[in-house]
Amino acid sequence: MPATAGARPPDGAVREPTFHLTGTTPAGRLYWDPDVLRTELERFYYRHWLCIGREDRIPAPGDFFTTRVGPESILLVRDGKGRIGAFYNLCRHRGTRVALEEGGRGAHSFVCPYHSWTYSLDGRLTGAPHTKTIEKFDRAEFGLWPVRVETWGGFIWINLEPKGPSLKEELGTFLHRFDATPLDGLKLGGGKIYEVEANWKIIVENFSECYHCAPVHPSLNRLTPYMTGDNDAYFHEPGGRSLYSGGYMEFAKDYTSMTRTGYTKRPVLPGTTPEDSKRVRYYTVFPNMFFSLHPDFLMTHRVWPTSPSHCRIENEFYFSPEAAAAPDFDPSDAIELWDEINLQDWRVCALAQEGVASRAWKGGRYSEQEALTADFDAFVTEELAHKK
Amino acid sequence: MPATAGARPPDGAVREPTFHLTGTTPAGRLYWDPDVLRTELERFYYRHWLCIGREDRIPAPGDFFTTRVGPESILLVRDGKGRIGAFYNLCRHRGTRVALEEGGRGAHSFVCPYHSWTYSLDGRLTGAPHTKTIEKFDRAEFGLWPVRVETWGGFIWINLEPKGPSLKEELGTFLHRFDATPLDGLKLGGGKIYEVEANWKIIVENFSECYHCAPVHPSLNRLTPYMTGDNDAYFHEPGGRSLYSGGYMEFAKDYTSMTRTGYTKRPVLPGTTPEDSKRVRYYTVFPNMFFSLHPDFLMTHRVWPTSPSHCRIENEFYFSPEAAAAPDFDPSDAIELWDEINLQDWRVCALAQEGVASRAWKGGRYSEQEALTADFDAFVTEELAHKK
Amino acid sequence: MPATAGARPPDGAVREPTFHLTGTTPAGRLYWDPDVLRTELERFYYRHWLCIGREDRIPAPGDFFTTRVGPESILLVRDGKGRIGAFYNLCRHRGTRVALEEGGRGAHSFVCPYHSWTYSLDGRLTGAPHTKTIEKFDRAEFGLWPVRVETWGGFIWINLEPKGPSLKEELGTFLHRFDATPLDGLKLGGGKIYEVEANWKIIVENFSECYHCAPVHPSLNRLTPYMTGDNDAYFHEPGGRSLYSGGYMEFAKDYTSMTRTGYTKRPVLPGTTPEDSKRVRYYTVFPNMFFSLHPDFLMTHRVWPTSPSHCRIENEFYFSPEAAAAPDFDPSDAIELWDEINLQDWRVCALAQEGVASRAWKGGRYSEQEALTADFDAFVTEELAHKK
Repeated sequence: MPATAGARPPDGAVREPTFHLTGTTPAGRLYWDPDVLRTELERFYYRHWLCIGREDRIPAPGDFFTTRVGPESILLVRDGKGRIGAFYNLCRHRGTRVALEEGGRGAHSFVCPYHSWTYSLDGRLTGAPHTKTIEKFDRAEFGLWPVRVETWGGFIWINLEPKGPSLKEELGTFLHRFDATPLDGLKLGGGKIYEVEANWKIIVENFSECYHCAPVHPSLNRLTPYMTGDNDAYFHEPGGRSLYSGGYMEFAKDYTSMTRTGYTKRPVLPGTTPEDSKRVRYYTVFPNMFFSLHPDFLMTHRVWPTSPSHCRIENEFYFSPEAAAAPDFDPSDAIELWDEINLQDWRVCALAQEGVASRAWKGGRYSEQEALTADFDAFVTEELAHKK
Repeated sequence: MPATAGARPPDGAVREPTFHLTGTTPAGRLYWDPDVLRTELERFYYRHWLCIGREDRIPAPGDFFTTRVGPESILLVRDGKGRIGAFYNLCRHRGTRVALEEGGRGAHSFVCPYHSWTYSLDGRLTGAPHTKTIEKFDRAEFGLWPVRVETWGGFIWINLEPKGPSLKEELGTFLHRFDATPLDGLKLGGGKIYEVEANWKIIVENFSECYHCAPVHPSLNRLTPYMTGDNDAYFHEPGGRSLYSGGYMEFAKDYTSMTRTGYTKRPVLPGTTPEDSKRVRYYTVFPNMFFSLHPDFLMTHRVWPTSPSHCRIENEFYFSPEAAAAPDFDPSDAIELWDEINLQDWRVCALAQEGVASRAWKGGRYSEQEALTADFDAFVTEELAHKK
Repeated sequence: MPATAGARPPDGAVREPTFHLTGTTPAGRLYWDPDVLRTELERFYYRHWLCIGREDRIPAPGDFFTTRVGPESILLVRDGKGRIGAFYNLCRHRGTRVALEEGGRGAHSFVCPYHSWTYSLDGRLTGAPHTKTIEKFDRAEFGLWPVRVETWGGFIWINLEPKGPSLKEELGTFLHRFDATPLDGLKLGGGKIYEVEANWKIIVENFSECYHCAPVHPSLNRLTPYMTGDNDAYFHEPGGRSLYSGGYMEFAKDYTSMTRTGYTKRPVLPGTTPEDSKRVRYYTVFPNMFFSLHPDFLMTHRVWPTSPSHCRIENEFYFSPEAAAAPDFDPSDAIELWDEINLQDWRVCALAQEGVASRAWKGGRYSEQEALTADFDAFVTEELAHKK
């Protein structure tokens, strides 16, 4: 949620864009028009890599789960060779959902509940009764519609666009920042799903600045005062466009983590530099992931629009295998603090959502502290203006 | 719900269309677009004969009931001469509903609750206070707006199009199939109203094939195995277009009816041939009625769209007067089995409704068992493509 | 709710328009089309003077309340100099609501809950942290967006159109009718908010005639029979257009007020003529206020559309300070009678709302008793037909 304070960087560091000094926030229509959301889903959510959870949610062949992307249901399944596949969750015969549960273990195939068309774990159509005399019906062409899938850092990423850059091509410079951190082995320690009455972009704008931290988050501001830290990545990079932005904030005093007390008994994650052990690193990965690396844990948010004025937010916490295996492992010190901070944010985001629907609203002005927010808004506005 | 198995007919029998061997199921838009539903209501529901219940629901003068057709409320009433009339249920003065109850008995007139404009049982405006000096106001022109009404087989049928073919002109070939069956005297033995999360056409498609019967309906499939029977009527007839389709299925072993046990103590309906005493005859009457004649009872379904993704289904069971008058008459053996089968169908129909809304859905392929379903889909698609 | 009987005026009195003798009620679309409501909000609710409550609701500096006009939230606040100001309730920074409660007392400023931008009681931006280096950012231009506000008769009136006629220019002829009545000092004695399933215009049409009073309101009709009284103001005045309409009804027998018994111990309001002490005077102020002056109290209704088929109605009762200060002051005799009458009206209005959505509805005819209703309908229809 907070990103960074935005103190001007010293010479030689990343130079921030200056949209926020001159620009106006987007028109209200971008926050309530169903046509805009339809376009955003097609342009952003269906064409970019989306993180949708951990690989270890489906450890063995036949393990599967389903997830929502806008109105779409996507099926993730590990096949007999241990590979993860992703498919639109609908039968090629009459469109029926083939996986009905949120998830399951050890399936051998997916049998459509309507007419028993059967698909293998890698999506091939292996059974379709009474179709022998149907013309031009090659079963090889009637597998479940595939969705591109890759993994990185223990996370599963999907892309609904059949062709295009790989995950590494699209997000390589982001991924490289965490080369030293053994993310693959992290263990899910808890999380929560929120239903929020705000446009998905208002959530991203909120995460992209800590200008609101003093008024809204006294607990957070005590541990990491909003004027500490710096931005170190923008969508508008000097050399071109990027698909992530963010920076870091610094702990006050001798605080060591984002917990109620500011302290933790958990060790820092392996590979953490002394510098980073005093920081929280906050990044937005376009369009909808917040990646917040704390000294002793990783927190993610994934933001899923369900209507122009509503989104579902998945918030999860990951810990090192050593910490998670400790007999007295208790992640609630971090999770509870962040639940408090989350709820503070969703409240003000909902109040902003109400106001931008006003006929009086013509857009506002950014403060000096909102370089990342303005950068995101400019990026979205430019992308929407593009010819398809 | 099941129609027939679709084994190829022997020479000389009805020849089935071949859409199902080559065609693709309709585009997803037909199942979720509100504009499509509006067009379907105007073209199908407001221009064709609709069965809306039994004559004996309103046996005496002044008896009435109201029924919904899309957003419309229609008033059915028996007048002083014993004739049944049908009217839009709204006052000609300010549009107010004139009949507020679902039904009633022995009314002498309909008095609008707002300003007391009064209508006779045959729809004439008989009272309109303070209108003497209003210009060009001839009461004879201000009766309730009439809806065409006819009866057949003990059923009331209405048609919202003021002019056009009579019921017999439109559905004569269907009606003649039951000339030997004394349908007029049948007694309502029970029924149920279902709210279903599927487009109305998905319900018709479901009723038009038994390809799903083995996976979805083990009880039904045990009594009437899905490969028995045959189709004997199509929307696309060799000589032109028809407004119904269907066929029959045959009982396995010595089963005699669709009940939990497969047996019944009820005698066959009068006029039933020995051949038909071993069959269930299933027909779809366009747009929204399923007519299922069992050896010992008649079952009907009427499907009413309430939104693109939702419909209300009225399911009723009619028995011979002799059976209904028996001291130990108990129709639950049939009604409970069909309730189980209905609920199995509504579940898979709702799962298909979800999938056809996907951006990935481009239509599917029919199996060899879905000649009637493809025939219906082709008929609807052609009708929608017609110039208005 | 009732207006007047509409007996033809004697020579020399106001001449009523004759729309009702020849015209047809508006097309059904005006009552259910969201586009029509959007236009009506822009043309009627956002361009005319709207009464939104009493001055004495915010008696002291820093007292405030918020009110809804369509989807807009408007903030009313008394400033340090005792003046009432009206503002769109949204921060100029990110659009966030600045006043969250329905009302409050003694505020010193409005601090946006999101980033603490701060506004004075007269709407000026007095605090905006971290904006010193923002370009072309003059705080004087970033106050809360103002809404025009005036007062009359102890009521607060707002107008969302920044320029245009003053309250007195727009409604002067209406206001002058009550010059003799000391409205300013009246005290709120009670009221109720209703949610009604009808288009706002159906509510106005209902208030504009007493043709429905005999069938719908036996209690009212006993006290003020519907054929008494007369209309004395129309939207279509001989000399041009007006923004109000109405008339009066007369008490039967020796009744003295609209209470359960027809009698009251409360004295007539100061300034009431002997003639008016035997009357209830009912007026519609365009677009959404009903102003009903009884001998001993004033009643108002304010009608707020929330969708094409729904509105919220605020109904309030005001009494003389002397009556309100009496130890045995009990306004329930009037309020309970009017609650009964209101609910009778909302019921028939909802039944009319249902019917005008029918495809059969082509508009109805007015009776001789509906001159004011036809006048209002014609006025609205003409306004909507205007070029913007």
